Amino acid sequence: MRKISLIGLGLIGSSMARDIKAIYPDDHLIAYDSNPEVRARVQELGLVDLMTDRLEEALKAGDIVILCIPPSEIVTHADKIARALKPGAILSDVSSVKRSVIEAISAHLPESVHFVPAHPVSGTENSGPDAGHRDLFRDRWCIITPVDRTCPEKVATIRTLWEDLGSEVEQMTPEHHDIVLAVTSHIPHLIAYTIVGTANDLESVTRSEVIKYSAGGFRDFTRIAASDPTMWRDIFLNNKDAVLEVLQRFSEDLTALQRAIRWGDGATLFDLFTRTRAIRRSVIAAHQDTELDNFGRDQLSDPQPKSKP
Amino acid sequence: MRKISLIGLGLIGSSMARDIKAIYPDDHLIAYDSNPEVRARVQELGLVDLMTDRLEEALKAGDIVILCIPPSEIVTHADKIARALKPGAILSDVSSVKRSVIEAISAHLPESVHFVPAHPVSGTENSGPDAGHRDLFRDRWCIITPVDRTCPEKVATIRTLWEDLGSEVEQMTPEHHDIVLAVTSHIPHLIAYTIVGTANDLESVTRSEVIKYSAGGFRDFTRIAASDPTMWRDIFLNNKDAVLEVLQRFSEDLTALQRAIRWGDGATLFDLFTRTRAIRRSVIAAHQDTELDNFGRDQLSDPQPKSKP
Repeated sequence: MRKISLIGLGLIGSSMARDIKAIYPDDHLIAYDSNPEVRARVQELGLVDLMTDRLEEALKAGDIVILCIPPSEIVTHADKIARALKPGAILSDVSSVKRSVIEAISAHLPESVHFVPAHPVSGTENSGPDAGHRDLFRDRWCIITPVDRTCPEKVATIRTLWEDLGSEVEQMTPEHHDIVLAVTSHIPHLIAYTIVGTANDLESVTRSEVIKYSAGGFRDFTRIAASDPTMWRDIFLNNKDAVLEVLQRFSEDLTALQRAIRWGDGATLFDLFTRTRAIRRSVIAAHQDTELDNFGRDQLSDPQPKSKP
Repeated sequence: MRKISLIGLGLIGSSMARDIKAIYPDDHLIAYDSNPEVRARVQELGLVDLMTDRLEEALKAGDIVILCIPPSEIVTHADKIARALKPGAILSDVSSVKRSVIEAISAHLPESVHFVPAHPVSGTENSGPDAGHRDLFRDRWCIITPVDRTCPEKVATIRTLWEDLGSEVEQMTPEHHDIVLAVTSHIPHLIAYTIVGTANDLESVTRSEVIKYSAGGFRDFTRIAASDPTMWRDIFLNNKDAVLEVLQRFSEDLTALQRAIRWGDGATLFDLFTRTRAIRRSVIAAHQDTELDNFGRDQLSDPQPKSKP
């Protein structure tokens, strides 16, 4: 009987648990979480075979151990994690930053343990075991970033796991992963957090006005800016170089548009706005978003009936 | 028989036409559009009672005339528009910028015509008469920005129109409108256009990678960045002061976060990320967005079946 250990049962860990229970009924699924409320809830929901409050127990047991905790926790506890694993085990993770996590783990990992870093590019703005659900990873991409000593056979095991969860798997270097994700995920989150903060802090516009008129575009940013604060603090702190590099480019581009607005240079604005339209079409063609207006949000029946806005 | 003229049958004009035809079957609905393809399509769809290619005819006929064309077109043709209206008519608009439109129109408007500037805070990323649909304005806000000489009775007529279209109506000054919309709509659009452009221009990450891994956050921005280029060029050129003011604040806030990342100041990041979460909850509580994960986009059946991402 294969034993799979999930460390951390938040949005990602609990979604994996739901899928794994359904897809691999013969596997033994073990979980650890440091938060007693999360542990209680996971047991209530019956998501795993064994829920433990002892990290070492979960680490020792797994033939496959998957770290679903924030990057800083991995970095801080890398020594403890690496040493608790059993010989022959596969260690993997789901972190949105790869280089710093790999450096921390690799410094302590015994030769007998196989590390296959992975990152499912999927999620929602919500967190905790109740936010997880089946098929979160279906039709999404999972990136595996093998390191020099990673055995191809173990890479194949993790690849198969993610394919069984419905994802398409791609391989790249940790360094390339970190810059790709800085662009496609980290900087978008950073600027969403920023504009929501800026709007909240303006003296000339009340918070109530910001909320009332948010359908003009602002509301889209509030979704991403509702993402887990601990996770995102850790992502920025652990992908500093790539984030600062892309942020510099973004700031330059924004300054160029600011100048175009100040000088009334409509052609520069129009050219960019035409180019960006094509990217949206490509995202939809690649099945990475719905083609419905407004993400289709208006076509969903609202859970709460309303007569007035 | 009351005559309503819509000038411009794009997303907003054609949505209004659909609602007005259904809500006021006794009114006579006249429309003008400068684009022959739009005119043909509007006639095919049977959206109005009379579609004309002569601007003056539509302007002259209306008891209520509503300008649904980009701000720069209003500004450019203000003289022609103002002089064509019949005595006693109400002129309104739907522009996302108010001060510059009001200045342009007011310079030419005869005493006998009543100007009631309005702005429905609603829309989608798509444009043209096929993008419009019924109930686009339902449960959204419409802002009316009366000017000194606006007669309260005519304000009431426009207010009633928008209420009949399902909107809640609020009044404020044009200046305040322009700063509120700079925050809730214009700057969000500007930074979405910017990041989509930045991502597209990076040498280190391919365009195909940006698209594949866009589910990490980037795809949200591509929706807004697919908005009509002409309309948005005009909005930025015609709301320069307010946009530059809010942009300055945004840039300062972003620089502060950049510094926090560079110096590893996790507390600053965590504090902001916690505050922004509360704003999302308020937006949902105010019924301005769905509370479903990921805007509920994953719960919609995809119009195109897919097995692979």
